[in-house]
Amino acid sequence: MEIAVLGTGTVGRTLAAAFSALGHGVVLGTRDPGATAGRAGPGPMGGTPFREWQAGHAGIGLETFAEAAGRSALVVNATNGAGSLAALAAAGAAALEGKVLVDVANPLDFSHGMPPLLDPVNADSLGEQIQRAFPGAKVVKTLNTMNAGIMVDPGRLANADHSVFLSGDDAAAKETVSGLLRELGHRDIIDLGDITTARGAEMVLPLWLRLFGALGTPNFNFKIVRGGQGAP
Amino acid sequence: MEIAVLGTGTVGRTLAAAFSALGHGVVLGTRDPGATAGRAGPGPMGGTPFREWQAGHAGIGLETFAEAAGRSALVVNATNGAGSLAALAAAGAAALEGKVLVDVANPLDFSHGMPPLLDPVNADSLGEQIQRAFPGAKVVKTLNTMNAGIMVDPGRLANADHSVFLSGDDAAAKETVSGLLRELGHRDIIDLGDITTARGAEMVLPLWLRLFGALGTPNFNFKIVRGGQGAP
Repeated sequence: MEIAVLGTGTVGRTLAAAFSALGHGVVLGTRDPGATAGRAGPGPMGGTPFREWQAGHAGIGLETFAEAAGRSALVVNATNGAGSLAALAAAGAAALEGKVLVDVANPLDFSHGMPPLLDPVNADSLGEQIQRAFPGAKVVKTLNTMNAGIMVDPGRLANADHSVFLSGDDAAAKETVSGLLRELGHRDIIDLGDITTARGAEMVLPLWLRLFGALGTPNFNFKIVRGGQGAP
Repeated sequence: MEIAVLGTGTVGRTLAAAFSALGHGVVLGTRDPGATAGRAGPGPMGGTPFREWQAGHAGIGLETFAEAAGRSALVVNATNGAGSLAALAAAGAAALEGKVLVDVANPLDFSHGMPPLLDPVNADSLGEQIQRAFPGAKVVKTLNTMNAGIMVDPGRLANADHSVFLSGDDAAAKETVSGLLRELGHRDIIDLGDITTARGAEMVLPLWLRLFGALGTPNFNFKIVRGGQGAP
């Protein structure tokens, strides 16, 4: 499948490399490809300089948001949550029309210090905002509840015995995304329901962030433990 | 230990019965004991009429919020979240002074229909509101992330292989509460940190509610799956 991953941070790079390794055609989307490609210094989060990362992933193209989204059947929003709507507007409604749009971003607001707040929250979600802004796209919220390394290699943790959530209005789009998740190794894919259920998946982030602090590692995930048949 | 459980709904009754069965002295607190004891019809959630429940639990007293809290070393807030501050105000600051106050309530707001919203959320929590309102109490937020049946009998689900969270400012109070949780059978007790971490534990409720809908049963819980030593 031709996949556009919008966003060149840790999550975007990690997803792009994983989909490419699985044999998909992958292109990264960014606001200004020349500026991104020229980055020789570490990013704001201290990761590998983009130029260095790109040298090790020659099969992954780098284009504008609009070019990347326009050529691809499936688009992944891996931009930071505060900039997601602007990034998708730059991609343009035409490039997203009829596409499966996988939203993995979290709407974290760092402007009030740490830990970040969520905005929007409770009666709305970034997933819903994106769906409203691009009614022609088939938005599926997923993967936002775990570290990027676990997103693409769930088996690194407890033999993949943990859970990932799906929210979206289009059943076929959720089936397409489920297939990709299974390719990555996810075994427990829970369909929460329509796109409004993205609120729940996004609102789990404050707990995720505090667990990160308490456990001292991002190498954990949520598992939904269920009772068996006939359990009370 | 002398334990007061404030609130006579499903959560309060379930916790009171479990603590009593463990050999603790337990009293239920309610606004108007005469009115509660006289209830012969089903409650708003359709549970067993209180009078019938009480007949099967003769060892558990029923007193006013103030009487129940005043006589007990440990107080559990199992009132509904929207009424918790009023219930604790009725108990009174004097009755809560120096006490461990276990807050298991969720601040669900049903006034806008289903699913309920959380209020407060994000930059505050019910746990923090209670701690601010009663600075002499040692508030520990816990157990709010699971069904009442699992709270008191975690082994009924996956041999108790799932997680419970603690939030609070007082280390000794959290140790006391951890001991009670272990008595109930909880094996994975995660101390999230100070009382502000209750925001994360409370904000998980929208996901819990959607999982309840998706799975069709409340018989599930969150497990925090961690990597082992040397995991990436």
